Amino acid sequence: MSKPDEMNTIVILGAGKSSTYLIDFLADSCAEKNRSLILADLDVESAKAKLKNRKETRAEQLDSANDAQRRALISKADVVISMLPAFMHPLVAKDCLELGKHFFSASYESDAMREMSAEVEAKGLFFLNECGLDPGIDHMSAMKIIHEAKQKGEEIISFKSFCGGLIAPESEDNPWKYKFTWNPRNVVLAGQGTACYIEKGDLKYVPYHQLFKRLESLKFPGLGDFEGYPNRDSLSYRKTYGLEAIPTMLRGTLRRTGYCKAWDVFVQLGMTDDSIQMELPEKATLRQFLNAFLPYHSQLRIEEKLAEIIPDLDFPSFEKLQWLGFFENRPLPKTTGSPAQLLQAILEKDWALRPEDRDMIVMQHQFEIRTKEGIKEITSSLVSFGEDSVYTAMAKTVGLPLAIAVDLFLDEKIRLVGLHLPVIPEIYEPILSKLEKSGILFEERILEVKKENPSVPSD
Amino acid sequence: MSKPDEMNTIVILGAGKSSTYLIDFLADSCAEKNRSLILADLDVESAKAKLKNRKETRAEQLDSANDAQRRALISKADVVISMLPAFMHPLVAKDCLELGKHFFSASYESDAMREMSAEVEAKGLFFLNECGLDPGIDHMSAMKIIHEAKQKGEEIISFKSFCGGLIAPESEDNPWKYKFTWNPRNVVLAGQGTACYIEKGDLKYVPYHQLFKRLESLKFPGLGDFEGYPNRDSLSYRKTYGLEAIPTMLRGTLRRTGYCKAWDVFVQLGMTDDSIQMELPEKATLRQFLNAFLPYHSQLRIEEKLAEIIPDLDFPSFEKLQWLGFFENRPLPKTTGSPAQLLQAILEKDWALRPEDRDMIVMQHQFEIRTKEGIKEITSSLVSFGEDSVYTAMAKTVGLPLAIAVDLFLDEKIRLVGLHLPVIPEIYEPILSKLEKSGILFEERILEVKKENPSVPSD
Repeated sequence: MSKPDEMNTIVILGAGKSSTYLIDFLADSCAEKNRSLILADLDVESAKAKLKNRKETRAEQLDSANDAQRRALISKADVVISMLPAFMHPLVAKDCLELGKHFFSASYESDAMREMSAEVEAKGLFFLNECGLDPGIDHMSAMKIIHEAKQKGEEIISFKSFCGGLIAPESEDNPWKYKFTWNPRNVVLAGQGTACYIEKGDLKYVPYHQLFKRLESLKFPGLGDFEGYPNRDSLSYRKTYGLEAIPTMLRGTLRRTGYCKAWDVFVQLGMTDDSIQMELPEKATLRQFLNAFLPYHSQLRIEEKLAEIIPDLDFPSFEKLQWLGFFENRPLPKTTGSPAQLLQAILEKDWALRPEDRDMIVMQHQFEIRTKEGIKEITSSLVSFGEDSVYTAMAKTVGLPLAIAVDLFLDEKIRLVGLHLPVIPEIYEPILSKLEKSGILFEERILEVKKENPSVPSD
Repeated sequence: MSKPDEMNTIVILGAGKSSTYLIDFLADSCAEKNRSLILADLDVESAKAKLKNRKETRAEQLDSANDAQRRALISKADVVISMLPAFMHPLVAKDCLELGKHFFSASYESDAMREMSAEVEAKGLFFLNECGLDPGIDHMSAMKIIHEAKQKGEEIISFKSFCGGLIAPESEDNPWKYKFTWNPRNVVLAGQGTACYIEKGDLKYVPYHQLFKRLESLKFPGLGDFEGYPNRDSLSYRKTYGLEAIPTMLRGTLRRTGYCKAWDVFVQLGMTDDSIQMELPEKATLRQFLNAFLPYHSQLRIEEKLAEIIPDLDFPSFEKLQWLGFFENRPLPKTTGSPAQLLQAILEKDWALRPEDRDMIVMQHQFEIRTKEGIKEITSSLVSFGEDSVYTAMAKTVGLPLAIAVDLFLDEKIRLVGLHLPVIPEIYEPILSKLEKSGILFEERILEVKKENPSVPSD
């Protein structure tokens, strides 16, 4: 930092659900270090409550869409952390660039952000994106293994990485073993578009309606079975991780085993479609909503028609739909909107977190590395539990890496300028080490070193 | 027309494939009637050739995106016919509105067009859209039956209407029984989005990946079996046709039986996706292209993996893919672009019309009408054959209705102002009657009058 002896001011934009740990960590640091914190949110009372009157902290009301107000606030900062919705980041970053402030976010580095890169560097500023959980902890923990292998002269021939925001086993009290711990709309629309990855040197493209069938099985120590479906773009990570020539690279999202097959029923029927508007009768039921996606038949009942459209419908999937009330004349909570919006309204009732529910973050990297001795398989797994429905594992794993990055930067332990991701040792090493002290740590298993037995490529 | 004794000038914008009959009809009329014709196209030589030196006709070169040039041309017209790509119509219509010219097209009436409605009427102009085949002849022939039924006090309880641009039986020399008689890109992308229709009072929504499974079987006298899949929006036609309360309304596209099941393989695999870019090796083959949409497997061959992904793959579908070369190491004609673009390049080679091929237009309306005697079923079918690959049935059925409409308007046999579709008797009656004389006529069959036996609605 340019002002070693002066007090540094941190501005956090957004005091929402995923900011709890971030706020606590940085607000606590103000009492110990020569810093002050301004927490800005539309709901100033809630922001104030989260600061708990800690020394050198205060809340300000902010309508983030108000350019003048936002810029006035940012001008008071030394570093700005944007926890606003992703589309706001380029605006905030632009303000920071113009006003000479450092910028931090847990969101994807956008093209708009990349366009500012040269200017960020020219002005001696530090902009760090993708420093949360996914993206964030995934980058850092993967790069540690990748850099170690490269230093030993080993070759990484396969890297698969999965992450999921789920619920702790004792809260898995519905047949989906899932509740919303995250923006419900994002969960309903998850995976739309076409996924691409590379396997044994062949590029693979997976349309949305095949996505929840293209599954990999995973195990976590002590937690049992999970399944992962491919994320939209695994290919761009080859460049990010310096693995341009890697034959196998796949990133995916984790769910409990059985979730994807049942969710795929919604996908196959068109119930996750967000492109059209339905107008069902006001008294429509879940059964009628389901029937809107099935053909007319003069003899068959809905259950029979469903079995025709989804020929591989099994009992575990049927039971999951039944648990949500799809075969009953239960009233639809919402009757106009896109199919995805109507589905979301149904799920929000039944997949809501109870106050005592704990969430759970699971992440797993699977590497195959060619060494002099043969092929080494490394599995590196992270499991993190929330404390309750406010102090969630999601908020912890998203907010702590970002808070630690800001702390290290203000302490001048990160001395970089320019636009960055946490893929370089100077950033990820101290962050991973501090995360470990907060219980966010990977369990690494070297599964086996086997003589190379090249797998037969599929023709 | 406002100038009964002066010569009227017709301007046709676009001398492409579907304009042949339109040009011939109106160019011939210039020799008989007090009219002149200007045919404008970027390719002025081709336009000139199509006019065959007929009296009072001339070609002009036009870059339709050049506003000044386009407006200068339109200012010479009394009536303007736009055969340009659909996105150009609102621009041309706006010019016509400002310059006080009448406007005709065979394309869908857009929102932009509807916004001009009041002004068109205020200026005493006549704007007619949807006066080709589909939309066009479908409206006219359907409205004739609908109006007749309404006049007799009968109630239309079901209306299904299908149309297809196919090839004549003697040209069906590939297993798909299909060739491109129409814009190949539109054929490859056909049906994307979500289709909606109503059946027995229930709204039905069909996502793209279910579309080619939601089929109806149809027969045409003397031509055998066809199948129809639902068009994107059947619901809006309830208003267009004055059938707001009809319990069953479906519009669909026709293919030869078996086409849809095989085409659905492309859809299921993601090969019609136009949203992502593929970059395959320059020497990639059709077999490799197919493999990009299949999972990796260390033991299974492509044929086996395909059978896993498409569990209901039957021999007729397999044979259709095989005929296109998908199981061979045949070079891909194009290796970069969207999956849909690569697929189109493959099909363009194998589905090209030969000069001697004749195309075929098939259209069928199916009505169920409640009369005093019971339920009457009417099937009304149109079949039209092209003469060769230039004088196509497509060009005839798109161009003649439009040409006849302009002819009737200039002869003052249509005396309307405002924005219209050909759904009112003053427009459709004389057009249908003239089309009949050109051999474009519907064969109507009243299949049966049965006592009402209300079908059990699917629950």
